[in-house]
Amino acid sequence: MNDRYLRAVRREPVDRTPVWFMRQAGRSLPEFRAVRARASLIEITRDPALCAEVTLQPVRRLGVDAAILFADITTPLAGIGVAFDIEPGVGPVVEHPIASAADVARLRSFEPDEAVGPLLEAIGLIRAASPVPLIGFAGAPFTLACYLVEGGPSREFLRTKTLMHAEPAAWTALMDALVAMTIRYLGAQVAAGAHAVQLFDSWVGGLGPRDYERNVAPWMRRLFAGLAPLGVPTTHFGVGTAGLLGLQAEAGGDVIGLDWRIALADGWAAVGERAVQGNLDPALLLGPFETVAETACWILDQAGGRPGHIFNLGHGVLPETDPDDLCRLVDLVHEYATAPTPPFVTGSTR
Amino acid sequence: MNDRYLRAVRREPVDRTPVWFMRQAGRSLPEFRAVRARASLIEITRDPALCAEVTLQPVRRLGVDAAILFADITTPLAGIGVAFDIEPGVGPVVEHPIASAADVARLRSFEPDEAVGPLLEAIGLIRAASPVPLIGFAGAPFTLACYLVEGGPSREFLRTKTLMHAEPAAWTALMDALVAMTIRYLGAQVAAGAHAVQLFDSWVGGLGPRDYERNVAPWMRRLFAGLAPLGVPTTHFGVGTAGLLGLQAEAGGDVIGLDWRIALADGWAAVGERAVQGNLDPALLLGPFETVAETACWILDQAGGRPGHIFNLGHGVLPETDPDDLCRLVDLVHEYATAPTPPFVTGSTR
Repeated sequence: MNDRYLRAVRREPVDRTPVWFMRQAGRSLPEFRAVRARASLIEITRDPALCAEVTLQPVRRLGVDAAILFADITTPLAGIGVAFDIEPGVGPVVEHPIASAADVARLRSFEPDEAVGPLLEAIGLIRAASPVPLIGFAGAPFTLACYLVEGGPSREFLRTKTLMHAEPAAWTALMDALVAMTIRYLGAQVAAGAHAVQLFDSWVGGLGPRDYERNVAPWMRRLFAGLAPLGVPTTHFGVGTAGLLGLQAEAGGDVIGLDWRIALADGWAAVGERAVQGNLDPALLLGPFETVAETACWILDQAGGRPGHIFNLGHGVLPETDPDDLCRLVDLVHEYATAPTPPFVTGSTR
Repeated sequence: MNDRYLRAVRREPVDRTPVWFMRQAGRSLPEFRAVRARASLIEITRDPALCAEVTLQPVRRLGVDAAILFADITTPLAGIGVAFDIEPGVGPVVEHPIASAADVARLRSFEPDEAVGPLLEAIGLIRAASPVPLIGFAGAPFTLACYLVEGGPSREFLRTKTLMHAEPAAWTALMDALVAMTIRYLGAQVAAGAHAVQLFDSWVGGLGPRDYERNVAPWMRRLFAGLAPLGVPTTHFGVGTAGLLGLQAEAGGDVIGLDWRIALADGWAAVGERAVQGNLDPALLLGPFETVAETACWILDQAGGRPGHIFNLGHGVLPETDPDDLCRLVDLVHEYATAPTPPFVTGSTR
C-alpha cells in the first residue's frame, strides 16, 4: 500500500508530498453523478458495494494518496434517534430541533452495527480493494450540535450560541451525548478497517476563542482521549478558525487541518509540533489552472519540504470543479521537489 | 464634544474606553422600527432630517461615544449607474451583475452632490446636533465588488473569485472604479462634517492571503493614500480576517477593526502599532447578560488600558438585541477601570 499519507501524518520523511481532497468523492466526478442519478446520498451510505465504489472512484481517477469514506456528516445521527432529511439545495433538515435538556434526554445511545452496519461493511470492501489508506470521519460535536439545534443550515448559529449560554446544562448534556456517539462511531470505523480518522468541525469558526475554550475544547479533549486507544492517527479540521488554531491544536489531533484563509506557514506556526493539512482555496479551481498551480507552489514553498505536510484543499471540492484539473493538481504536488530529510528550510511566505 | 473616540483613535490616553456599536442605528431600537414603519431604508437615506434622526437615536438612548452615519453599504452605487433593490429578508439585489470589462466600462463617474446630496445634508444636521463625533463610512472595494459581481448575497463569492482570476483586466478596472468612487464619496462625507471614516470590508474574509495581497491590497493602499489628504482618522474593518490582519494593517487604517473570532490581544499583536476596535460576539447579546459582561471584561483585560482601544462588537448589532442590554454594556465599558497612562500591563488573555 502507498503509505505516504500515513508517513506524513507521523511527520516522517516522504518521497512525495501526499495529497487528497476533501469531498474528492462527489459531484465533480461524472462517474459519481452517474451513481447519484439512481441513488440518493442516504441510499449510497446504506449500500456497501455502492458506498465502496463511490469512495474508490477518486482514488482511481485522480491518483490521490488517501481515500475518505463516503458518508455525510449527519449519517450517524439517525442512530441516536434524530429524524432528518437531506433536502436538495438546502442540506440536512432536522425534524425536531433540540431546544432543551429534555430534548437531549430523548436521544438514544449509539449502536454502530445497528445504526451504520452497511457503512461498516463498505469499509471492509474498501480496505480490501484500496491501494491507499482509508480515512474514516465524523462531524465534530460542536458542528453536529449546530445541525441539531439550528435544525438546518445557518449563517450565524444564533440558536446554538444562545442555547450554549442560556441553557448550560442542556449544552453540556448535548455535547456529552455527541462525544459518546462519536467515539463509538469512529471506533467502529477503525474496527472495520479505517487507517485514520478525521473530525470535521466545519462550523466552529463561528465561535470566538473564549467560547471555544469554555464550551467546545473540553469536549474535544475528551473525544481525542477517547480515540487514543484506537491507535490510529487523527486529523482535526475546522473552517474559518485562523484565530482558534492554537486552541484547536491544544484540544487534540495529530494533524491540524487548515482552511485557505491563513498562510500555511502562519497556520503551522500557530499549531506547533503537529502535522498540517491544506490549504488551497477550492474556488481557485473554477478559474484558470495557472492560478491553481502558482498558489499550490506558494503553499508547497511554505511547507518547504518539512515532514508533516499533507496537501489538500482548504475545504471541500466544489461540484463545478473539472476533475482533469484535480488530476493536474495531484501531479503537480507529486512532482514538486520535496526536501528528503530535515533540517528543513522554511519557504519565503510573503 | 465628547472626544474620547477621537483620542483613542490617535492612541492618546482616555478617561474611559470609548464604545460604539456597528449597526447601533437599526432594528434593535423601537424608535428606529417606528421610523421604518413609515419609510424604507432608501427613503431614510434620501431624507436629511430622517437620516439625522435615525443616526442620533442610539447616541441618545445608549450613551455611546460616537455616531455612525445611517446608510447602507450599497447607497453610493446608484451614483455610478448600478440599479439595485433592497429585498426584505434578502438584502441588496443588483439588476445587471457585472461579468466583464465591458460591464465595468459602462459605470459612470461618481458625483457626490448628485448621487447622495440628502445624505451629505444629513451629515450637516448630525454634526450640528451630536454630542459625539460622527463616523462616515463606505464599503471597501472588494466587498462592493462582491455585491456587483454576485448580484446578491453569496456565501462563497465564486463568481467574484472566478472573475478576479479569469478576467484580470475586468477585475482591475472594477477595483479602480470602486476606489475612485469611494475616495470621492468619503471625501464628500468629510467635507460635509464627518470627523472620521470607516471602511467595511465585510466579505474580504472569504479570501486567502495570496489573493488578498495580489487582488485587494494594492487598491486598499491606493484608497488609504487617497483618503490621507482628508486629514481624518480611518478605520479598516473586516469580518473573518484573523489570518489576514497583518496584510490589512499594512494596507492602511489608523484603526483596525477586529471581529470576535480572534482574541483581542492576538489581533492587536498581528496589526502592530495601530489602534484596534472590537470585539465582542454580537450573538452573546441574545443570551444572559452575565456572559456578555464576563466576555467584555475579558476583552478589556486584554486591552489592559493600553491607549488605542475602542470597544465595539465584532460585527453589527443583531436586530433581536435588547437595547437595555446595550445600555448596560456601554455603562460596563465606561465604568471599567482603565490604566491612565502607559506603560500598560497586558491582561491575562487565556
